[in-house]
Amino acid sequence: MELLISGGTVITMDAEFRVIEDGAVLVRDDTIAEVGAGSTLAPRAVGAKTIDASGTIVMPGMINGHAHAAMSLFRGIAEDHSLDDWLQRYIFPAEGRNVTEDFVLWGTRLGVLEMLRGGITTFADMYYFEDVVAQVTHEAGIRGVLGETIVDFPAPDHKTPAAALAYAQEFIERWRNDPLVTPGVAPHSTYTLSTETLKATAALARRLGAPILIHIAEARFESERSHAKYGLSPVAYLESIGLLGPDVIGAHCIWVDKDDIATLIRRGVGAVHNPSSNMKLASGVMPVVEILASGGRVGLATDSAASNNNQDLFQEMNIAAKLQKVSRMDPRALPARQVVEMATIGGARALHLDHKIGSIEAGKQADLILIGTGATHSTPMYNVYSQLVYALNAHDVRTAIVAGRVVMENRVCLTLDKPAILEKAHEYQRKVAASLIAAPVV
Amino acid sequence: MELLISGGTVITMDAEFRVIEDGAVLVRDDTIAEVGAGSTLAPRAVGAKTIDASGTIVMPGMINGHAHAAMSLFRGIAEDHSLDDWLQRYIFPAEGRNVTEDFVLWGTRLGVLEMLRGGITTFADMYYFEDVVAQVTHEAGIRGVLGETIVDFPAPDHKTPAAALAYAQEFIERWRNDPLVTPGVAPHSTYTLSTETLKATAALARRLGAPILIHIAEARFESERSHAKYGLSPVAYLESIGLLGPDVIGAHCIWVDKDDIATLIRRGVGAVHNPSSNMKLASGVMPVVEILASGGRVGLATDSAASNNNQDLFQEMNIAAKLQKVSRMDPRALPARQVVEMATIGGARALHLDHKIGSIEAGKQADLILIGTGATHSTPMYNVYSQLVYALNAHDVRTAIVAGRVVMENRVCLTLDKPAILEKAHEYQRKVAASLIAAPVV
Repeated sequence: MELLISGGTVITMDAEFRVIEDGAVLVRDDTIAEVGAGSTLAPRAVGAKTIDASGTIVMPGMINGHAHAAMSLFRGIAEDHSLDDWLQRYIFPAEGRNVTEDFVLWGTRLGVLEMLRGGITTFADMYYFEDVVAQVTHEAGIRGVLGETIVDFPAPDHKTPAAALAYAQEFIERWRNDPLVTPGVAPHSTYTLSTETLKATAALARRLGAPILIHIAEARFESERSHAKYGLSPVAYLESIGLLGPDVIGAHCIWVDKDDIATLIRRGVGAVHNPSSNMKLASGVMPVVEILASGGRVGLATDSAASNNNQDLFQEMNIAAKLQKVSRMDPRALPARQVVEMATIGGARALHLDHKIGSIEAGKQADLILIGTGATHSTPMYNVYSQLVYALNAHDVRTAIVAGRVVMENRVCLTLDKPAILEKAHEYQRKVAASLIAAPVV
Repeated sequence: MELLISGGTVITMDAEFRVIEDGAVLVRDDTIAEVGAGSTLAPRAVGAKTIDASGTIVMPGMINGHAHAAMSLFRGIAEDHSLDDWLQRYIFPAEGRNVTEDFVLWGTRLGVLEMLRGGITTFADMYYFEDVVAQVTHEAGIRGVLGETIVDFPAPDHKTPAAALAYAQEFIERWRNDPLVTPGVAPHSTYTLSTETLKATAALARRLGAPILIHIAEARFESERSHAKYGLSPVAYLESIGLLGPDVIGAHCIWVDKDDIATLIRRGVGAVHNPSSNMKLASGVMPVVEILASGGRVGLATDSAASNNNQDLFQEMNIAAKLQKVSRMDPRALPARQVVEMATIGGARALHLDHKIGSIEAGKQADLILIGTGATHSTPMYNVYSQLVYALNAHDVRTAIVAGRVVMENRVCLTLDKPAILEKAHEYQRKVAASLIAAPVV
């Protein structure tokens, strides 16, 4: 099966950051076979299915490095609270009352549909009933790095961390050879888990060769508690118990000092920036510039729709650039191309999948998106990276391809049933709202 | 002529912040006649033209308190520079080489088209050839507070400030009785104008009863130069020369201390926040919370597409809320409803037009927008203000009405010729790019 995408401006995000005007990408099965000028590739692709990419930017599908997709059903249920308050008084109780397998099924469908519509072709997820998330990932034809969440208190799916770990083991063994799903385990954080559970989780992951997804140094209180309890920063504490390694994906990484950054980089930890969530919850500002300057693996993410309140990586690119500039009072900080990098090949590095995805290069998986450039808000265009970060938006994504399969074409998702998903979301909205009214969590 | 908008969730932004589910707005000619329940109003509106607003939010048209609409043709020509560098090395030279009456005509059409498509029904503008901006405002059917820019160096339209002031006088006299255009004068800033020109500009505005639009305390260098030259902050200096008053609209107001804030409020100055531009140029963070808490008139704005790079007030709402939260490390700062206020009635206060626009109340001008709520990214909805600030976006705006006239219906602008505008923008893109190559401004 050959597919030729031809006529657009191809942003490769390869090592030379090649941009090919009137370029083409030839896909064979799930893999990129060739990238080059349209005039060179087209004659070689006789018989291939062709997608006319003229008037579009063709770029690597975007990589959402940290999400809780099912929480899309909680979009905007609690605002204007700090992370600690928001979790303990709103989110954890709301989850306890509402999160079932069915909730995760429909919530993940809603979240993944929004992601695909915004050009995200890979997402990293931490939630409960993660096997259901894997099923939806498969159904949607998106790529997922999926971690079953481990917490030390009763969770919606398991009453003990031991039960959750047993589930995680089965989950990883079931999905480990799937072409789209990379199954993993997600110890929630240093402040919701004992040293014992963290160690047991890391041991499980390493025994199975699975990634570890974890929130690291997100909030000031987390850093303070870690110092009070262990005499160490969250990063130093995780290092001291042997959790950090080249299989770890750490979300947030805000409350880190120079030594912590050196530790993260030495251990090959992926660091994922969530600017909207960090700003909205007033968690702080990740030192993205320092981590990148030191050679770190830095990705970009939406976090959940409960703290954002969307799954739009264009918005995160836009805000990431602006946040670094203003917080450092340096307009040159984090230029546009570097932001696009964080959303593509940088995100692949953070997820430890840069050998497979993140750039348009022969031999890589064919995860591609086409973005229309003809809208009022994106005319004129002087620089393609600037336009991606500061002018274009999720709605401009026309077509999404994952592993060579067209999953969205001209804004119609071919894999998920949008009307059914929206109807279920309305049902859950009424149920969740009633659960909050019946027993107010304030 | 009666128009009934019926069936939506009406966000009035009146003094009680009334939200009317299944509400209706009855418009007579250019004015809101009644607001209330659909079941009450519909029977009274026999013979009225009806707009079905079901599935939408009906709210006051948004107010963009500071723009340079024509600069949409410069969208993204220079990135990653500080305000001073960006102006002196890129923007002023690019303007000198390219800005003509025709450039302003097409650039303003492009900017205004983007604004209408994003639900902006009033914009404040500072540029050159402002008479052309007024003509486009009229043609588009949008509302404008328009100030001819005065600078002490040769500008694209006038070689001396005296010539610009003479033009401004004619401009104000020509448009002062127009129902949509409020003509004014725009002294650029304290750092581009002498005391003499600033005083002459203020005298002209006061003689004609016209508003004064000015950049105030945008950048650190501006504050430093003001202290060095006058021994006063920009606000204190402007106060000392009698420029501040209840006819002044001040953009940015970042480098202000407590005394400056008290001065702005005592003088009734409107303060307009431009979060994207301020972050991107690393200008700093306006103390929005303090100014609001002291009872200030605070609006919201996009600034120009050269520093943003769009004209999207939804993005500004989103970023404004998040920026106050993270910069104060307080997640409760600037809650969603207050942000919507800044984009509507607060913006009207900042432009000194709150008696006419900014809320849905009987007797006010019928400036209304309808926003679709059925998209994937805006489902489910728990709180309408949260949704407006954090989930909905410019593309969700379906219909825009200004002074009772439908100017956009189901995303089709009825007043401006989109294909012609985009074609001209492409032409100018080539011309501007060539002018930069021919004589690099770096």
